[in-house]
Amino acid sequence: MLPGEDDRRDAVKAILSSGQRELVAELDRLDGGARFGRGRVQLLEDGDVFERAAVAVTSAADSDFFTSGLSVVLHPRNPWVPALRASFRYCESGDAWWFEGAAELLPCYGFAEDAAHFHRVLKNHCDTLDPAFHAQAKRAADDRFRLPHRAEPHGIGGIAFDHLSPSGPHGWRRGAAFTAAGIATIAPAYLPIVRRRRDLAHGERERQWQLHRRGRFVESALFHAASAPRDDAEAVLAALPPLVRWDAGFTPEPGSPEAELASFLVPRDWAGETAAVVG
Amino acid sequence: MLPGEDDRRDAVKAILSSGQRELVAELDRLDGGARFGRGRVQLLEDGDVFERAAVAVTSAADSDFFTSGLSVVLHPRNPWVPALRASFRYCESGDAWWFEGAAELLPCYGFAEDAAHFHRVLKNHCDTLDPAFHAQAKRAADDRFRLPHRAEPHGIGGIAFDHLSPSGPHGWRRGAAFTAAGIATIAPAYLPIVRRRRDLAHGERERQWQLHRRGRFVESALFHAASAPRDDAEAVLAALPPLVRWDAGFTPEPGSPEAELASFLVPRDWAGETAAVVG
Repeated sequence: MLPGEDDRRDAVKAILSSGQRELVAELDRLDGGARFGRGRVQLLEDGDVFERAAVAVTSAADSDFFTSGLSVVLHPRNPWVPALRASFRYCESGDAWWFEGAAELLPCYGFAEDAAHFHRVLKNHCDTLDPAFHAQAKRAADDRFRLPHRAEPHGIGGIAFDHLSPSGPHGWRRGAAFTAAGIATIAPAYLPIVRRRRDLAHGERERQWQLHRRGRFVESALFHAASAPRDDAEAVLAALPPLVRWDAGFTPEPGSPEAELASFLVPRDWAGETAAVVG
Repeated sequence: MLPGEDDRRDAVKAILSSGQRELVAELDRLDGGARFGRGRVQLLEDGDVFERAAVAVTSAADSDFFTSGLSVVLHPRNPWVPALRASFRYCESGDAWWFEGAAELLPCYGFAEDAAHFHRVLKNHCDTLDPAFHAQAKRAADDRFRLPHRAEPHGIGGIAFDHLSPSGPHGWRRGAAFTAAGIATIAPAYLPIVRRRRDLAHGERERQWQLHRRGRFVESALFHAASAPRDDAEAVLAALPPLVRWDAGFTPEPGSPEAELASFLVPRDWAGETAAVVG
C-alpha cells in the first residue's frame, strides 16, 4: 500500500529533520569552537574547523507543487580541507513524485586519497539502490558541477540525480529510504577527510588561494540560485562563504600546487581507481 | 537614407571604442596610482582611487543576432565613494535594431547631494532625446536594480532602457548619437562624486561594511550574468570586486550610518528633489 500524500510529506519531513539534527550534532562535536544556531536554516559561524557551515531544511508548496529538502554547505577554515555541498530533496507535482540528490567536494588542493575516499563512500551508498545507479549519478554530477561561463569544473564532482522515482509497490519507500541513507552518508564521506587535513599548517599563500577558489564557489551557487525557487535561494545566500576574493586574470604559477588543481579537477573514475590510487 | 547593416555596425564600433578610450584616459588621470591595461576588457587593478575598474567592449554575433556594447564597473577603494555600473549596447535581430542602456550608483553610505547630482546629470542627458524619456528610464532602473531574492534595491538606481529604437528617417542616427552621449555622461555624472569623497578618512568599520555591500553587488552581477550571453559574462566576471564579505544574518546597529543606507536606497525622485536637497 502506498502512503497517502499527507503521510508521504510527513515522512519526508521526519527524515529531513532527523537528518539535520544528526548532522548538526556531529559537526558541532567536530568543530568544538562554535555551535550551530537552531531553526530552519541552521548556521555555524566562525568555528575552529568551519568558518561557516549551513544545514538547512527548506520547503515550498503551492496548489500544484510541493518540495522539501535538506541542503548542506560547509566552508572549512583550513585551505587544505575541501569545502562540501550536498542537498537531498523530495518533490511532488500533480500525481508525480520524485527524489533529487546531489553531493560534491570542492578542494583547493588535490589529494587523490581524499577524492577516492569521497567517491567510494558515495558509490557504496548508491549501490544499495541499484548497481548501475552510481555510474549514472557520477556522470550527471560531472556534467552539472561546472561553471559554463568559465568552461571548468568547480570541484571533483560526486553524485547528482534529478528524478529518482523507483517503480513497484514499495517504490516510494525505497526512494525515501535512499534519501535518508544519502543524508546519513554525508558524515562518513566527508568527515574523515576533514580530520585528516584540519591540522595541516598553512600560511597567507594558501589562504589567498582559498579565497580565490571561494569565488568559483560563489559563482556556481549564485548561477544555480538564479534559477531556483525563492525559498531555496534563502538557504543558498545564508551559505555563501564569509570572505571571498576575485583576482581578475589571475593564473597560478606553473608547476605550483595551486596550478595543479585544474588537472586534478578533470573528471575521472575516482571510485574505480581506489585500489591503484590509495594502494 | 538609413545606413546599411555593415555601416551601422562600424559606426557603433567606432562609438564604443572612442567612448572606451576617452573614459579610460579620464579614469587613468584621476587614479594616478595604477593604469588600465589595453584590450577588449580593459582593467585597472589596485589603484589609488579604484581597487578594480573595468571598461569593456564586448560583441557577439550569429546569423540572426548581433550585439555590441560597452560596460563599465568601478569599485572604489574608499568606502565613502559609491561604486558605479553602466552599460550601453546596440542590438540587431533580423530586421529589427535597438539600443539599450543602464547606469546605476551603488553607495555604501547615503549622501543626498551625490544622489541628486547623479540623477540630475542623467536626467539632463535623457532630456536631449525626449522630455518624457527620463521618467520612464528612471522607473525602469528602480524596477530592475533590485535583488529579487532579498526584496531590496542594490543601489540608488539611475536609468535603464531595453528597447530604444527612435522612429523617423534619422531614427537610427538619433539612437546612436544618444548612446555616444550616454557614454560621455558617465564621467560628469560620477567623477565629481569621486573627487568629493575620495579623501574622506575611514577605518576598519567602514571597510568591513564596504566588503559586505560588495556581496550585494556580486549577487546582482551574477544573477544578471546567469541570463546573459557568454561574451557578456566574461566582462561581468572580470569586473567582480577583488575582496568581498558575506555576513550571514548580519544587520547593522539601529541608528548607525550603515543602518540608514536601507532607507536611503528606497527609490525617490532625486533629480526632481535637487533644489530642496542641495539648496
